Amino acid sequence: MAKKEEKLGINVKKNEDFSEWYNEVVIKAELAEHSVIKGFMVIRPRGYAIWEKIQEYFDRRIKKIGVKNAYFPLLIPESFFKKEAEHAEGFAPELAWISEKEDGIRYALRPTSETIMYDSYAKWIRSWRDLPLRLNQWCNVLRWEVKQTKLFLRTREFLWQEGHCVYETEEDCDKEALLYLLEYKKLCEEILAIPVLEGKKTEKERFAGAKTTYALEALMPDGKALQMGTSHNLGQNFAKAFDIQFLGRDEKEYYPWQNSWGISTRLIGSLVMMHSDDKGLILPPKVAPVQIVIIPIYFEKDKDIVIKKAREICNSLKAYSVELDERDGYTPGWKFNEWELKGIPLRIEIGPKDISKNEVVFARRDNNKKESVKIAHLDKKIKETLDDIQKALYEKAYKFLHSNIATADSWNDFLKHAKNKKLVKAFFCGSKECEEEIKEKSDGITSRVIPFEQPENIGKCVKCGNKAQFLIYFGKAY
Amino acid sequence: MAKKEEKLGINVKKNEDFSEWYNEVVIKAELAEHSVIKGFMVIRPRGYAIWEKIQEYFDRRIKKIGVKNAYFPLLIPESFFKKEAEHAEGFAPELAWISEKEDGIRYALRPTSETIMYDSYAKWIRSWRDLPLRLNQWCNVLRWEVKQTKLFLRTREFLWQEGHCVYETEEDCDKEALLYLLEYKKLCEEILAIPVLEGKKTEKERFAGAKTTYALEALMPDGKALQMGTSHNLGQNFAKAFDIQFLGRDEKEYYPWQNSWGISTRLIGSLVMMHSDDKGLILPPKVAPVQIVIIPIYFEKDKDIVIKKAREICNSLKAYSVELDERDGYTPGWKFNEWELKGIPLRIEIGPKDISKNEVVFARRDNNKKESVKIAHLDKKIKETLDDIQKALYEKAYKFLHSNIATADSWNDFLKHAKNKKLVKAFFCGSKECEEEIKEKSDGITSRVIPFEQPENIGKCVKCGNKAQFLIYFGKAY
Repeated sequence: MAKKEEKLGINVKKNEDFSEWYNEVVIKAELAEHSVIKGFMVIRPRGYAIWEKIQEYFDRRIKKIGVKNAYFPLLIPESFFKKEAEHAEGFAPELAWISEKEDGIRYALRPTSETIMYDSYAKWIRSWRDLPLRLNQWCNVLRWEVKQTKLFLRTREFLWQEGHCVYETEEDCDKEALLYLLEYKKLCEEILAIPVLEGKKTEKERFAGAKTTYALEALMPDGKALQMGTSHNLGQNFAKAFDIQFLGRDEKEYYPWQNSWGISTRLIGSLVMMHSDDKGLILPPKVAPVQIVIIPIYFEKDKDIVIKKAREICNSLKAYSVELDERDGYTPGWKFNEWELKGIPLRIEIGPKDISKNEVVFARRDNNKKESVKIAHLDKKIKETLDDIQKALYEKAYKFLHSNIATADSWNDFLKHAKNKKLVKAFFCGSKECEEEIKEKSDGITSRVIPFEQPENIGKCVKCGNKAQFLIYFGKAY
Repeated sequence: MAKKEEKLGINVKKNEDFSEWYNEVVIKAELAEHSVIKGFMVIRPRGYAIWEKIQEYFDRRIKKIGVKNAYFPLLIPESFFKKEAEHAEGFAPELAWISEKEDGIRYALRPTSETIMYDSYAKWIRSWRDLPLRLNQWCNVLRWEVKQTKLFLRTREFLWQEGHCVYETEEDCDKEALLYLLEYKKLCEEILAIPVLEGKKTEKERFAGAKTTYALEALMPDGKALQMGTSHNLGQNFAKAFDIQFLGRDEKEYYPWQNSWGISTRLIGSLVMMHSDDKGLILPPKVAPVQIVIIPIYFEKDKDIVIKKAREICNSLKAYSVELDERDGYTPGWKFNEWELKGIPLRIEIGPKDISKNEVVFARRDNNKKESVKIAHLDKKIKETLDDIQKALYEKAYKFLHSNIATADSWNDFLKHAKNKKLVKAFFCGSKECEEEIKEKSDGITSRVIPFEQPENIGKCVKCGNKAQFLIYFGKAY
């Protein structure tokens, strides 16, 4: 689309004003924009296509595990929230209500679907033969945020998947809660090229109504931690609240064990922050809706032969998602800038000289490197190059994460590292009071995750000096 | 799932109480059920999987045309509805509002997204180069129905796709509005095995705000017509209301032309009604989430050899969606009933005798016919059988439709045919007044579609006797 009146590129530098830079990349790469409705976003085709890639991958993965998709109502009766006390309290401030009432009942728009789903589960589950029950839904949810809107990261409506499974035993339930976390980790690291730290949440940070919350955290280039996905072991809390019971193998009645787990369109935001640069969006090839753009370069006299060859090459690349930019009235340079802004991982340039040598030119989006490639080796070289881009982006992010973790042995260390925007690793007593004090005295640092692997000797709490329970990561969260 | 306390089969006959039979099939085949929230449904995995098959097929088709998916906010400001007067009036009675307000603005939950999308379109479209713009979204919509709820057919929330395209010329716009209608027809006839009548809607029945509404109508076995999909040529109505303008090739400003088109989860209801029988659900193979179920039949001594062979066969059928029912504690007869109820098109039975003859037994869901098939010919026979089931279901439905169309030359004819639950073909003057009178005097018969192909000589209106404008189908609508 030719909006020549607008400056095409990004006006702000990533390392000067990260927040404004992010906003510009999202908008100018046409991923999303602010809606006229306060707190809402419009996900544009280029943004939605990334979500489709994530869905495609993840939906296939969970179906292999035996998860099935379903759809439950958008509205939730007020009384349902009240059944699980912690859940009710946790979500109360974020609920949006509808004006229409039936029999005097008030309805909220779903902020998450535990309650409405488990009301059905109570009817469906009778016997151990009905377990495990593994359902998922891809849907929109509403949380009436009052904090400032940030595209993909904090909007009043977003898209997500929520998985809700039920098991006979606590062991199965916890094992699978961790299995879904592992699936999220694979998605983040292998597809989105974003390394994550996995672990448990503290009592203060866990999901409202859960027994244990497992989570993945990534470190964004501005030093803030972003929660990438969560998986909750709900224990029997909701089963008891919604009276889900099953007849066990011994013919006695039991409450089953449940987990729930979700990822959302905020992952698109993490992609933008993590990989992109001052020229615009950078996407890892595995999640890029368009992986390759072909740009024919010619003077008028060579047009026919160049276009013909470009089309031939485009049609031959069946295994990739390719676009051929044949538009007239735009210079190659303008096209380069546009597709760099939009984040296409690999650009293939083709001109009369290249054709005479049976070559094309590859230009990588991630490191700007150019190289001539024999057309005869095209398929092999594309595969290698895309694999290498995927790997390079992951490695860069991995290096960034691990060079920004700092261990704090004292409260002074803690404050120093926090000020330097590090993810702070420290021993912690785990108490809610201590965690609140840390947040207050550190300008908003919160606990992120307790890694599964813990050192043999646990020292003293970085804040209160009492015996610590575990080693944990602290950071400023999005 | 073994809910032995419940009777497995359908308690009502299709030709005795169609409405109750429908409800029972939907619920007992576990496609959907009534939610605790009045007017809402829960789409269960077996129902949702049918929707996924429809999405998979249709999404691929429209992407080939150049349509891209996006996502717009669930909420719509009150003022947006008021911009297009007919649209506002048409949807006013069905809107649900939220209690939360921003700056005093009232928001409705989307009943359809013309207004919220076109507000963005006005910002995005600048030049003829931006056209055609072809977007679609798969989402939930809310229409606050007061009539009695019917699963899949009339619920306050349903899932659908809504396509919204913008063109430079009226001709392109109308041509593509018809192209999407044709895509719907292919979906209905080739995938769902439901023949449809296509045509235009009358002024009274067209979409609120449209210039022309094109629609597909199918005839259900109870003699009621079901609208399967619609495609609206919106003309420039919304472009003018939302001030969408583009710079034409001649550097002058123009209003573009728009169409919108949709199909919804009601298609799942049409499948149930059209094909199913007193034993439960029947699904055409092309839309069946599970196409084949394999039932091993054995006495304990043969168990190992039969299960082994059944697994071998199951694993060999990669091109189909197959389930092997290995469950212990259920007789083969019980399993037959269950999978017939759930609508699996083809059952493969395998026992020790079959194995000794290198055979299996095919049992077709649609006509109950059984036949022995050599294992060596399995692949070929499965393909033939599934193709034949698909064809047979379509042909049966086709015969039903065309033997239930009756031409009315007089008002008496009209009433007689209507009473006999026929789709009535008649000449009609097209006036709103006459149409209202017909509805009133015929116990609710409405105009369905005006076929594209019209006879050379148009007679007199079946009701008022004035000069008719066209030949049209009338029927009782769902």
